[in-house]
Parts: sequence; structure tokens; C-alpha cells
Amino acid sequence: MKPRWKGKGSEAKASADPMSKIVSQLHSSLIRSVARGLLLSRNVLIEADAELSYLFNRARFGRSRITSQEEKQWFQLDMEEAFYLCFSLECLKGIGKDGSIKSNKELWEYSKSEKPAFPISYKAYSHLRHKNWVVRSGLQYGVDFIAYRHLPALIHSEYAVLALSKGDNELNGRLRVWSDVHCTVCLCGSVAKTLLVLFVDSNSQGTSSPSCLEHYTVEEETITRWNPEQSREDQTSLRNQTNLGTI
Amino acid sequence: MKPRWKGKGSEAKASADPMSKIVSQLHSSLIRSVARGLLLSRNVLIEADAELSYLFNRARFGRSRITSQEEKQWFQLDMEEAFYLCFSLECLKGIGKDGSIKSNKELWEYSKSEKPAFPISYKAYSHLRHKNWVVRSGLQYGVDFIAYRHLPALIHSEYAVLALSKGDNELNGRLRVWSDVHCTVCLCGSVAKTLLVLFVDSNSQGTSSPSCLEHYTVEEETITRWNPEQSREDQTSLRNQTNLGTI
Repeated sequence: MKPRWKGKGSEAKASADPMSKIVSQLHSSLIRSVARGLLLSRNVLIEADAELSYLFNRARFGRSRITSQEEKQWFQLDMEEAFYLCFSLECLKGIGKDGSIKSNKELWEYSKSEKPAFPISYKAYSHLRHKNWVVRSGLQYGVDFIAYRHLPALIHSEYAVLALSKGDNELNGRLRVWSDVHCTVCLCGSVAKTLLVLFVDSNSQGTSSPSCLEHYTVEEETITRWNPEQSREDQTSLRNQTNLGTI
Repeated sequence: MKPRWKGKGSEAKASADPMSKIVSQLHSSLIRSVARGLLLSRNVLIEADAELSYLFNRARFGRSRITSQEEKQWFQLDMEEAFYLCFSLECLKGIGKDGSIKSNKELWEYSKSEKPAFPISYKAYSHLRHKNWVVRSGLQYGVDFIAYRHLPALIHSEYAVLALSKGDNELNGRLRVWSDVHCTVCLCGSVAKTLLVLFVDSNSQGTSSPSCLEHYTVEEETITRWNPEQSREDQTSLRNQTNLGTI
């Protein structure tokens, strides 16, 4: 499936404004404002001024939450998004309800306690973010994430992403039976996304601290329906297949 | 979701021609022709003359297979369909490759060896067929079956059906995680079907013979998205919800 840009000039706009630059602007702004994120159940809440709100929206981290305060906005981040800003980009600190600043190790433990599959889902999330994909929750489509090549304003999302733990199916339990594979691929097709499965292998490193993550490896596989018509006569149609190398 | 009849006169046509009558005609024709079904991997092949072909197509059992013989047609039945005709309606006999007629017990063992989840899927299939639903393979949608209120020529299918074994999740492994539930419900919604889950409880009767089936119980649950708009203002919209009592 080819990238589906929204409108004619979108591809050019995206090239002129790379995602890495947008995220880097958010990074600088967070460091400047000495940002703090409040841990609340499975989310992290961040108070944002106009500039930070603009950059959160642009880089697609979190969702804005409407409050009665006009000047300040609150952003609600998923645990993966917050941990990425805290641990990978080092531009945010998490704070507990008592106001104490959490170390990365404490934040890691907190995330795991709220979401047992966090080490796997975070590895998948950060794997894609490091490659400058825009990664959003896939809840709506029954997957872990959806991935955009650039800003959702310019392009439709291309991948529906499942993060599976290699060798530990009990934890996530997806794609164990054919009917689930069929169902997922069928749904992805109907919303014009490709199913991308990220098999995360912990290489027996455990989950005791976030430093384990660097030893985790990720295997990428896309699953698509085979169209038997595709290779019969028209060889050119093969060229339209997704280029896995770009992931 | 209300039944979606195809065209104006379809509902009246269906009332005048109940499914029970159509299946009963197939039943009589199979008994008259002393029908035999050849066991072949996970299918049963039946040679059918013009009348039987017409009735197979009408009652929606199996799929016709084109052969070079003009007068005779072959019908390919799934194991559940064949076992329903052999065991529940007693109008078909299965034969092995050596030409020997199989008893129901032998056919049961054969079906289980080809498809370990057969006792569960058969109970679900027969449960719906007994209630005069037209039941077809749900492979295309990543579920076990799809169910029509009447002939697919008159009405769209209403239910996407998953047959799950109660208490033995290892065997089927569906709907164990939220993302799978979301994905399945989302797909069902996009093809205008309601997800019907049949939880089959073997009540510790085992699977040693088909007579166990009468002790199996089936619990029916539909899973739909909750639409928070639905109950806010317009109370009439609630009346459009699926009436579970009809299942």
C-alpha cells in the first residue's frame, strides 16, 4: 500500500518539515519549561502553556484536556509517550501525587505495575518513534498503535501495529489462532492500513530496569492478504507493494 | 441492529417460505436419494443431481464444485455441515476412501482428528441451525460462522459468530485480550454485523462420543460498542437495539 497523502502539496510540505525537527522543537521547549508530568493511573498529565500546547499537538504527543483555565492547557500522555520523553529524550520528569520527582527506574516500575506488558509495548513504541514515525494509540482499531509517516494532517496512517512479546504468548495473546489473524488483517484492509507486527525479544534480559531495553531486539513483520491476481499477468503491480526497508 | 432485508418484498417472501420447510425438503431429498458423502481431509464431498443441487443451494449447505460432468454436481460440505446432516438430521452417511460407511461415532472421531475444536464448533453450528438460522463459514471475516435470518438472497447476514469453549481458553484462544475484542467488534461494525459469542460449556462431559453433545450447554452473548449518544436524548433509538430473545 502506498502512502496516502492528504491533498497535492502535502508530500512537499512534509519533506520541508521533517518529523525529527518537530520532535526536537518539543524537546527544547520541554527542557526550557522544566516540564513535570503528574502520574495518574495509566496516564501522565502535563500542564502546558501556549507554545508547549502547540508543539505537543504538532509532534502528536498526548491529547489536550479542556479545563476552565483559559491560558493553561493540560495534556494527557499515555505511559509510553511519557516514558519516551522522560527516558529516551530526557526532557520530562514524572512526579507522584505527593509531588516527589520520580527517577526513570521508579517510573519504569510504576508503568509496569499499571500495565504488565509495558516493557514490550514501550520497546515497540520507542522503536518506531526513534525512526521518526508518529505513533498514536491503536485502541480504536483493536491494535496497540497506529503509525503515520508524518503529521496526521498531511497523511493517513499507514500501519496498524501490534507489539508482541517473542516467546511469551501468555502476556499478550494476540494472533495465536488463524481467526484472529484473519480478523485483524481484514479490519486493517478495510481501514486501508497494513498490519505491522513487532516481535519484541527480551533476549532473557528481564524487566528489572529500563537499561534492559537496549538489549531488547525488535523483529518487524507486515502481514497482508495475498492477492492471487497480483502476480498473474501484470508484473508492474508488484512494484506497488510496501517497501519494508522504510520501516 | 435491525435485520437488513434485500429489497421491499423480501420479508414477506421469507415469511411465506420458512427456513424449517426448506431444510425439511433437503432432508427428504437426501433420504430419497440415499445420499453418501465422501470424507476428504476437512471436507465431505457429495454427488448431487439437479434436485439435490437446487436444495443444497437453497438451504445453504456446502458449496458447489464445478466438474466436467454436466448432469452431476459435487457439493463440498464443511465438517460441521456434514455432521449435522448425518447426526442431527440422519439423512446422510459418510464414507471413507475405501468405500466403507462410517458410523456417527467414527465420523465424530474423524472430525475431531481433523479439527481439534470440532466438538465446540459443531455444538455452536447445530445450536444455530436448530433454531433455523442459516449458518455459513465466517472465514472471510475472521470468525467461526456468520448467521443469516433467512436465505442470503433475501437478507444480509446479521451475526458474526465466535464459538468459544467455556473454561478452556487454550483451545481457541480468542477474545483473551482487549485489543482482540476491540478489533473483532470494530470489524463486525464495519461490515454491519453484530458479534455473537457462543460460549459452549461441555459440563465435564468430555468428547468421547457424539452423545456427549446433548449435555453441552450454550450461553449466548452479543458484544457491541456502547454508543454514549444513544441514551442521552432520543429514547426511541434504544428500541432499535438487537432483540437478544430472537436468537
